[in-house]
Amino acid sequence: MTLLGHNYIGGGRSGEGDVKLLSIAAATGEAHAVPFLTATEAEVSAAVDAASAAYPAYRALPAEARAKFLDAIAEEIDALGDDFIAEVSRETALPAGRLQGERSRTSNQMRLFAKVLRRGDFYGARIDTALPQRQPLPRPDLRQYRIGVGPVAVFGASNFPLAFSVAGGDTAAALAAGCPVVFKAHSGHLITSELVADAIERAVKKTGMPAGTFNMIYGDRVGAQLVKSAGIQAVGFTGSLRGGRALCDMAAARPQPIPVFAEMSSINPIILMPEALKLRGDAIAKDLAGSVTVGVGQLCTSPGLLLGVRSPELTSFIEKLSAAFGGTNPATMLNSGGLTHYNGGVARLTQLPGVKVIATGGTSYTQAVPHLFKADAALLFSKEAPLEEEVFGPSTVIVELESREQLLDFAAKMNGQLTATLQAEIGDLQGNQDLIAILEQKAGRLLLNGFPTGVEVSDAMVHGGPYPATSDARGTSVGTLAIDRFLRPICYQNYPDELLPAALQNSNPLGLLRLVDGEPTKAVVNDPRTA
Amino acid sequence: MTLLGHNYIGGGRSGEGDVKLLSIAAATGEAHAVPFLTATEAEVSAAVDAASAAYPAYRALPAEARAKFLDAIAEEIDALGDDFIAEVSRETALPAGRLQGERSRTSNQMRLFAKVLRRGDFYGARIDTALPQRQPLPRPDLRQYRIGVGPVAVFGASNFPLAFSVAGGDTAAALAAGCPVVFKAHSGHLITSELVADAIERAVKKTGMPAGTFNMIYGDRVGAQLVKSAGIQAVGFTGSLRGGRALCDMAAARPQPIPVFAEMSSINPIILMPEALKLRGDAIAKDLAGSVTVGVGQLCTSPGLLLGVRSPELTSFIEKLSAAFGGTNPATMLNSGGLTHYNGGVARLTQLPGVKVIATGGTSYTQAVPHLFKADAALLFSKEAPLEEEVFGPSTVIVELESREQLLDFAAKMNGQLTATLQAEIGDLQGNQDLIAILEQKAGRLLLNGFPTGVEVSDAMVHGGPYPATSDARGTSVGTLAIDRFLRPICYQNYPDELLPAALQNSNPLGLLRLVDGEPTKAVVNDPRTA
Repeated sequence: MTLLGHNYIGGGRSGEGDVKLLSIAAATGEAHAVPFLTATEAEVSAAVDAASAAYPAYRALPAEARAKFLDAIAEEIDALGDDFIAEVSRETALPAGRLQGERSRTSNQMRLFAKVLRRGDFYGARIDTALPQRQPLPRPDLRQYRIGVGPVAVFGASNFPLAFSVAGGDTAAALAAGCPVVFKAHSGHLITSELVADAIERAVKKTGMPAGTFNMIYGDRVGAQLVKSAGIQAVGFTGSLRGGRALCDMAAARPQPIPVFAEMSSINPIILMPEALKLRGDAIAKDLAGSVTVGVGQLCTSPGLLLGVRSPELTSFIEKLSAAFGGTNPATMLNSGGLTHYNGGVARLTQLPGVKVIATGGTSYTQAVPHLFKADAALLFSKEAPLEEEVFGPSTVIVELESREQLLDFAAKMNGQLTATLQAEIGDLQGNQDLIAILEQKAGRLLLNGFPTGVEVSDAMVHGGPYPATSDARGTSVGTLAIDRFLRPICYQNYPDELLPAALQNSNPLGLLRLVDGEPTKAVVNDPRTA
Repeated sequence: MTLLGHNYIGGGRSGEGDVKLLSIAAATGEAHAVPFLTATEAEVSAAVDAASAAYPAYRALPAEARAKFLDAIAEEIDALGDDFIAEVSRETALPAGRLQGERSRTSNQMRLFAKVLRRGDFYGARIDTALPQRQPLPRPDLRQYRIGVGPVAVFGASNFPLAFSVAGGDTAAALAAGCPVVFKAHSGHLITSELVADAIERAVKKTGMPAGTFNMIYGDRVGAQLVKSAGIQAVGFTGSLRGGRALCDMAAARPQPIPVFAEMSSINPIILMPEALKLRGDAIAKDLAGSVTVGVGQLCTSPGLLLGVRSPELTSFIEKLSAAFGGTNPATMLNSGGLTHYNGGVARLTQLPGVKVIATGGTSYTQAVPHLFKADAALLFSKEAPLEEEVFGPSTVIVELESREQLLDFAAKMNGQLTATLQAEIGDLQGNQDLIAILEQKAGRLLLNGFPTGVEVSDAMVHGGPYPATSDARGTSVGTLAIDRFLRPICYQNYPDELLPAALQNSNPLGLLRLVDGEPTKAVVNDPRTA
């Protein structure tokens, strides 16, 4: 394991800067010896230029070549051994078991996008054949497919050092789409980033991808320059509302505005229904305490707000949940900044009139202590919406509402969310279709009788949702639909077959399901121009 | 034909304002007697509220119900008679024949979106069935489809008073997506707007759509409030770069930023190759003069820049084109503001060192005179890019380049475009794949041996392109893909079959082609949860 601490630019390494970042052990605060050199202004530009130079060749590759590249990245990631896992664990305090699982998730995510490339539906191929005899005017031959938008800047998250970082979902989606990537490494896991970047670079070389297909820069203040760089055509981000919104504002103010897909802030409400509580109250309390504290609560989908209408079942459930929280333990967060931030959030809630702490998981000055709060329903409707501000860590707030109507009122005014969960039996759901309809307008994913933590990487997943959950509800940052964010349509009018991309040729050499004259078909096109 | 001049709000009419707009005859400047009342701040809010109130019911309608609504609008538009066409012609100076064609285009556009609704691919239905036995963790049942984003603000264009206005492409796409519309009427065709809005309202009532599904407000200064209104979730716009960018900036600065799909500015370059000029120079010159002057050059896809590498064929072609322009005539523009703007653009080019007028189509003080300019190639590379500024009207600029390399250089630095056209024979194209690859990066639609004016409304059309052609290259404002702009995905996790929307139910009651466990199929889902 050789560590250099230099930026990845166009297939080479560059360390011109004199601002150093250090890899800190999350549990002890100890710094690793190797300094990581913040990219200089010239290096940021060089990384964007390298991605821009790679773009024409990279996007023009057959999808199968990009699929092989993603498969090769997956293999390289799987091959990162126990010493790698140990380093990631040192930097993040996440246990080895969780990180081994996350490693598989990350490599399988690459493989899933390889499958998407082979399936070919991402092309969105559409063909309207010529109608030379049409009156009053003939229709020309028109063929549409989608290409990568250009170089993409990706900002990794701290909480998933593998699955939402260097080789994470945004990188996988962008590379699959044919977009070279400039990745801004997260300072919370520098060595992890370097080792994963090395793995990607090995895959670049093994599969003969253009130099500059992947680039990575270090630095806490390089993000603004990156997003403002003319060569960057889209941005993927996972992190705080403040950070994400700042990038959105920068991107919108560019001479050429570009889209930013920022996954930012969600309290992931869970609505608790009486019959479910009666039948499964113990299990829900136990699982909920687990969902709030898993990953030390450092998950985008961590449930931060629990809602129920006043009932004997709810009262009894709150007791069970308190007991379950009492059985949890303090745990080390990803970094000391995270702990400070969490403690600040806990203090804010604790001091709020109408909020009380009803259970904690021990005490600690160096680790995050799980907190269960109970808050007055009136706070849901206060103008500052104090219960809708995400507290990133192992805490949650339960609120006893007066009535179903009050629940509907809050749901209708609630901020956008990544997820909204119902704990309900069939009897609970009768007459609550209106509640579900409201939740559809508020969240990207609706769950019944599960917990929002644990985001499946699949075709049907949506990890997105209305603002402030994300900056654009039309995207998802997990699952195969994530590729859509980085594609744009292009139409060829009256191009002869031999000049068209393979995806659009008459003979359908890629075997795609295409929309031809309004019908989905894999058939060869009957082209009146050559008949 | 009863004209009221009041705003359309929630199925009723409202005229509280005291700022009046008048319908002006384009040819004579005469004002129509009926005043149109600018919406007050309260009326703008009321229109957004009406759309917001309609949204839950409207989006929840079966797609077939929305299809019937669009079909009904189409019927009502077709039924607008000769007196309607005469009024539109009076307001716009567009000839009756063109407007009759545009009326058909507008109604057929509605019918095409009805077909999309019936085809059902807009749902983007994806199902990942549960894997209860999977290790280490089971996979839950996950199902995704797309719903309308919410109320959409649409700003109509002046140049297509029917097809890009009240019942135009943006309105059709938004209504199809399940999004109520608040339309800002263009002051250039107020009576036209009112008559078309009446047609839509008749369709609303005939098909029982919720009141507030369609709303329309008058006023030159109501747009900012509309875009800033919290209820509005997306914006469609066709117009100037300045106007479109201002809306983008406003939308990005909202507490909740929203997407703006603005189609703004394009010079639609045409590249002229020697063999094509040799074989078809006469025809190209004639057709090109026609394409530049059709609709008095007031088309988004009007060719504003002609490029060729110095050759005897090009020299000869320029003579032919000059002759063809000499045979064109002045014509009345949509309004006097347009003429002033066009004359300003012509004056700017005329005074530019390195540019000369080589042909005009007559003289006039009250009408737009077609102009053919010839410009030095160096101007293409000047920092101010004076030849890339759109002149909206019947003029174009031809540039003789020194070499193929210079052409490639310019193509690579050129702004984003709606279209890029090659006039070329097979011999011309040999060795020019690199040029085509560059054009793919620059434009939404690539044409071979046609002219960019005349935008087919179909599945494969792209009327979009990189900035400043549009604000978001991932969208199109013409063709069925336009619906995608107003849809967002939503995922249901572990919802029982009976609570799922029809599009996602096991039995596939809508007969959709769905992506089930990674395979496209119309089959019934084999649900392990109920097996």
